Amino acid sequence: MSRAGEQTFVYDRPPRIAAHQSVAGPKEGKGPLASWFDTILEDDLLGQKSWELAEMEMVRRCVQAALNEAQLPDARVQAMLGGDLNNQIIASSFAARALGAPFIGLYGACSTFVQALVIGSALISGGHLENAVCVASSHYCTAERQFRFPLELGTQRPPQASWTATACGCALLNNAEGVGGLRITCGTVGRIIDLNISDANHMGAAMAPAVFDCIAAHMADTGRSAADYDLIATGDLGWIGRDLLLELAGAAKLELPPDRLIDCGASLFYQEQDAHAGGSGCGCVASVGCGWLMKRLEAGDIRRLLLVGSGAMFSPTSSQQAQSVPGIAYAACIERED
Amino acid sequence: MSRAGEQTFVYDRPPRIAAHQSVAGPKEGKGPLASWFDTILEDDLLGQKSWELAEMEMVRRCVQAALNEAQLPDARVQAMLGGDLNNQIIASSFAARALGAPFIGLYGACSTFVQALVIGSALISGGHLENAVCVASSHYCTAERQFRFPLELGTQRPPQASWTATACGCALLNNAEGVGGLRITCGTVGRIIDLNISDANHMGAAMAPAVFDCIAAHMADTGRSAADYDLIATGDLGWIGRDLLLELAGAAKLELPPDRLIDCGASLFYQEQDAHAGGSGCGCVASVGCGWLMKRLEAGDIRRLLLVGSGAMFSPTSSQQAQSVPGIAYAACIERED
Repeated sequence: MSRAGEQTFVYDRPPRIAAHQSVAGPKEGKGPLASWFDTILEDDLLGQKSWELAEMEMVRRCVQAALNEAQLPDARVQAMLGGDLNNQIIASSFAARALGAPFIGLYGACSTFVQALVIGSALISGGHLENAVCVASSHYCTAERQFRFPLELGTQRPPQASWTATACGCALLNNAEGVGGLRITCGTVGRIIDLNISDANHMGAAMAPAVFDCIAAHMADTGRSAADYDLIATGDLGWIGRDLLLELAGAAKLELPPDRLIDCGASLFYQEQDAHAGGSGCGCVASVGCGWLMKRLEAGDIRRLLLVGSGAMFSPTSSQQAQSVPGIAYAACIERED
Repeated sequence: MSRAGEQTFVYDRPPRIAAHQSVAGPKEGKGPLASWFDTILEDDLLGQKSWELAEMEMVRRCVQAALNEAQLPDARVQAMLGGDLNNQIIASSFAARALGAPFIGLYGACSTFVQALVIGSALISGGHLENAVCVASSHYCTAERQFRFPLELGTQRPPQASWTATACGCALLNNAEGVGGLRITCGTVGRIIDLNISDANHMGAAMAPAVFDCIAAHMADTGRSAADYDLIATGDLGWIGRDLLLELAGAAKLELPPDRLIDCGASLFYQEQDAHAGGSGCGCVASVGCGWLMKRLEAGDIRRLLLVGSGAMFSPTSSQQAQSVPGIAYAACIERED
């Protein structure tokens, strides 16, 4: 049985997370999670001539670090699955060019890392791949000028705006058996949900309904409840979006205990770091997942995690054309096996 | 055995193409393939207020037509896999919002349709999905102003430029057995190949090396040669790119008989339609594949097709930053089963 309910893949041969690496930018590296990241950048340009080239280089280094950790030569990587917020996902595709591996480009906005875990795990469990690199990144400076305004303008940010994390996370999955460690045991593919939020700064509100829908589908498909998870970690709803999720869950009588629900975006910065609603961007859930959460699983602090990435599937063009901001979410169940 | 060689998925339970639909724009509908398309648009605005909204509507209609053909209610679609050339793939994600099905957003530039077939087939063959809608689109007017210049400028196009097709193709895959029809039997995931083409108008030259690499990998992985295929159809190399592919194949002594090699982009327009190097865009291989080629397979004119989608993984930003244009390709083997 490889399928539960309507939206959830159950992996018959759950892939193992053979290595995971996280990179955080200078600001992210001064936040509450600083000690959990594998690499903290001193300079968000990484010696490159542009922020876009810097983001590509960040992805390349993060993937390389994961391969080094697992002692897997580049030439043995069977697929890289990834994406980012840049138009035409250039950070990921240029990093894939450097790696030389077969490439599966994904776009799920800020949910892309979990999307990669869900699809990569299915390809490994189905016997199509022996290993897969799952990666996603974001960079404050590339995202800000692409989605909103040139940084040089010094535009004031509204309080509901989130701060796109300069960060990257990479997990190397493989089909090794009987060696313990972390496994991805099932994954849920979300639907596009749109409750007509038209404020393109208000990502938390735009994404919370999709996160709720995805978690509800996951629980219905698997017959589980929040009690079956030590922790449910959403991607980047931020402080406001997390409250909205709890409100939606309350109204639908879906059990979601606040003490076992965290949000990566709401965990990434101190309130006094001026990140407003919290962290966001593909790199947020990727770096917090690969840095903090997978390490907590390995330490035995938690044993079963539901990692829920969420994305806002809009573009500046769709906003300019008065379209609302649809959200999506993917969920991956990550468990520690002794 | 679900894997052959390094880059090719072999589908143990080859998915069936339960329905396929193609939509072509007004110019495409005056080309040599006019009689093969299921729908030819009279107006490329489709009654919408903008070209972007028109592209979303084209995708929505194309998917709906495929579901109608297969008599599958929207609510029973288990996943929609798709993408397009718009920043943040808004045409696909907004169409997915209308459909309400779980959505897997992909980005492989003009290769996206074949990428969707390759991933969707793996998910069905692996037992993770019972059905999947694979779709990709492009629109001349959305692509031109996003990648190059506002149409109103009337900018002159260089002779090596291709013409982004206003078109969409959709294939509904399912896991039905023993009912004959078209099946996807294996798929190859390409690598990002970059031979340092820096002319962002010269897509054929940028993509030909990736197409060559993908076809060579497919043949090596499967132990096949061009003689095993009735037809090899590349996505949108155009007339120039097709010649370059033949040149690369010749130099590497890879058999690629010109009489069994066609290019969808080079087939879409008459030379006198002023499309310069030929058609391109995600919708090119999608509409020609779903329109012309799948119908030829059904008619028994050909029995085994290798459909090779190719994409140029660049953005206007990467070109402005003096980066070259990397290419990628995916290949899907489609066979007629009696």
